[in-house]
Amino acid sequence: MLKYWKKYIRSISERVIVMLKGNAIVGQSGGPTAAINATLAGVIRGAFECEYIDTLYGAFNGVDGMLNDRICSINEIFTNSSSEIDESKLALLSNTPAAALGSCRCKLPQPGSDAGREIYESLLAFFKRHNIRYFFYIGGNDSMDTVAKLTTWLQDKDWEMRLMGVPKTIDNDVVGTDHTPGFGSAAKFIAATMQEILRDTAVYSLKAVTIVEIMGRDAGWLTAAAALPGRICGDAPSLIYLPERVFDYDRFYADVEAALKVRNNVVIAVSEGVRLADGTYVGASAQSGVVDVFGHQYLSGTAKTLELAVKKRLGCKVRSVELNILQRCASHIASKTDLDESAEVGRAAVRAAANGESGKMMCFTRQNEPYKVGVKSEDIAAIANQIRAVPDEYINNEGNGITDTGIDYLLPLIQGEPDIIYENGMPKHFVINR
Amino acid sequence: MLKYWKKYIRSISERVIVMLKGNAIVGQSGGPTAAINATLAGVIRGAFECEYIDTLYGAFNGVDGMLNDRICSINEIFTNSSSEIDESKLALLSNTPAAALGSCRCKLPQPGSDAGREIYESLLAFFKRHNIRYFFYIGGNDSMDTVAKLTTWLQDKDWEMRLMGVPKTIDNDVVGTDHTPGFGSAAKFIAATMQEILRDTAVYSLKAVTIVEIMGRDAGWLTAAAALPGRICGDAPSLIYLPERVFDYDRFYADVEAALKVRNNVVIAVSEGVRLADGTYVGASAQSGVVDVFGHQYLSGTAKTLELAVKKRLGCKVRSVELNILQRCASHIASKTDLDESAEVGRAAVRAAANGESGKMMCFTRQNEPYKVGVKSEDIAAIANQIRAVPDEYINNEGNGITDTGIDYLLPLIQGEPDIIYENGMPKHFVINR
Repeated sequence: MLKYWKKYIRSISERVIVMLKGNAIVGQSGGPTAAINATLAGVIRGAFECEYIDTLYGAFNGVDGMLNDRICSINEIFTNSSSEIDESKLALLSNTPAAALGSCRCKLPQPGSDAGREIYESLLAFFKRHNIRYFFYIGGNDSMDTVAKLTTWLQDKDWEMRLMGVPKTIDNDVVGTDHTPGFGSAAKFIAATMQEILRDTAVYSLKAVTIVEIMGRDAGWLTAAAALPGRICGDAPSLIYLPERVFDYDRFYADVEAALKVRNNVVIAVSEGVRLADGTYVGASAQSGVVDVFGHQYLSGTAKTLELAVKKRLGCKVRSVELNILQRCASHIASKTDLDESAEVGRAAVRAAANGESGKMMCFTRQNEPYKVGVKSEDIAAIANQIRAVPDEYINNEGNGITDTGIDYLLPLIQGEPDIIYENGMPKHFVINR
Repeated sequence: MLKYWKKYIRSISERVIVMLKGNAIVGQSGGPTAAINATLAGVIRGAFECEYIDTLYGAFNGVDGMLNDRICSINEIFTNSSSEIDESKLALLSNTPAAALGSCRCKLPQPGSDAGREIYESLLAFFKRHNIRYFFYIGGNDSMDTVAKLTTWLQDKDWEMRLMGVPKTIDNDVVGTDHTPGFGSAAKFIAATMQEILRDTAVYSLKAVTIVEIMGRDAGWLTAAAALPGRICGDAPSLIYLPERVFDYDRFYADVEAALKVRNNVVIAVSEGVRLADGTYVGASAQSGVVDVFGHQYLSGTAKTLELAVKKRLGCKVRSVELNILQRCASHIASKTDLDESAEVGRAAVRAAANGESGKMMCFTRQNEPYKVGVKSEDIAAIANQIRAVPDEYINNEGNGITDTGIDYLLPLIQGEPDIIYENGMPKHFVINR
């Protein structure tokens, strides 16, 4: 009987927690991706569905907007004349790259520190002023750190709130989730582009080397995606170098020479983050021997450095290509799987918060054959500020290629093409005026 | 009566010319485009339709393949089991970037020169050996030059042939045609990518400059396409510099400073071919002050040079992006208008040759409102080796932007999206094994 009552009381208290009513705010932070607005669209859908949330506000430029009261009413922007969710706007938003609400690179001070008090008090005042009970933050590692710190700081304050982090990063290096929203679209752009580069470089019958630099300072996930064309056209870059392995010039030259014996046109994919044994980035190494007017070492980028090095050593035609910011914003070739999952994880964050969760990051779980993704929440404090590297079994023994196991992991993430709306021959975007 | 007979005799002689029966060969030459295989598909379709052509051969690596007897039977490759044209293969070929037959950078010697005799005799022997009466060459200015020279040389030989040039170049700088096959697809990639870069760079509220380098050594057509997003999202690069105007650093700095007063995130499009008043390329100027190990001036590229210059002068955050070979091979966002027109011009070349034309280049004529393209042939000798610049009325008075008239010219060329066949999440290509 006592057991029954305890259970009853707990169920009441849980229901009390659940029924937190008020407004919500959503912000975006960190570097752009092609899917960060799909997650925003998911949060918007979730908030429209949630009976506890009155108004969903958007914070311009993440935490900066909350500190400066630069916000907008998402309800006003995304409601049609019949007061229903405007599906056409939401569809356009999902296919628009880069944070529609603007982003920031703000790192909050430690919750207990004197330096931080003013900022945290200012945020609390902001929440109270707008009766904000829910905070959804879509971002990378720094953003998850923000959610974790704010959760800690708010614990003993007189303002009940639910704070949820939704990861996004093309880098795929967040711990606790099978993959990150935004990664699949970047990987698809890289795979499609590498295939086109393979076609492009194959037209001449001269010996030539093309070195393609791919983003990823700490982890080689994106560079690994360069191997994907092998599964469709049977052709892939001859060599792939990730930051998970020490980069060695002598081994590199030997690799290139061996590859040039097999074929005329050697394509190499290299992560911007590859490092020498002493820990220096290849892109920051003096190997190119290039200095600026002041005699300072000139940082020409990883591929450019390797281009100059190969030219000097092997004397053949060498070209370098930096995929640059295109790989994070090329929404015109986004992965439908990625956009759908990104929206779903945003919506799930709202549901989880409405059900009483807080201080959590939404994560993907995966089931294979057939590929199926689930959403779960993890304690954010345990996740923030860690880097998830490409596992050993995805990298070949020579450290210059991707295994079939690695390709099996990557392939489901780039599947499907979203219905992109074109206007005047260009993909139509949804712009929120800030 | 005499007049009647003359007319009758001429009509007979024309019919005799028309009925030249034999085999044909098609080759591709010059740099890759996303549409050069659509033109090949058009030539293939034209040859299948033409009763005078028995076998269509493909020359591997253009003229090089004819000199070394490296050819394939297009009929064998593109015929299905019912001996009909294989439409599915042709569709895949049309959406495959870069010359499927391989390319070359061969420039023929002058027809009358001693140096040239051996090469021309070798080509004639090749034509006779395979009973080749038709030669279709898809390429840029150098390829048109090849057709012109071969036509001249063959004039007094005992081998009747019809030689036709079909232009392709992303540069759009060929004289005699309203635009070139391949340009529209490159322009569409540039327009879509610039729009994405505008989104990407707008997320932060810091002052920042992004400089995007676009191909075009001698003419600014591709760089002009950077202005197109203005017609869809109301936002376009703040500044656009073409090689048609002298580049002046002082004016450039003043432009950038003025633009930074209007907005935080300034995007600049610059042609790789912009030059200073003394004729030196900006990318080859010493402005960056960067030298290599030997003290040689280091050619870092136009955008990189300007990045370093703006950083030094204005001190704000500057980034440079080189679209590089992606702009010529990004068939995943090809223009349907471009692909359709590119196929049609290839097919028309076969029809024209079958009707007795030779030594001609196929050209586009344009009618506006509504946009409609016609195909005509022009004497190739009058066209080869000239450069068509962007006309004055397409460039604004300040020399740093594109006029509405310019945008009106460009816009029809990027319309429409081809049905791209995806496999495993990547566009499927058609590969001819060489």
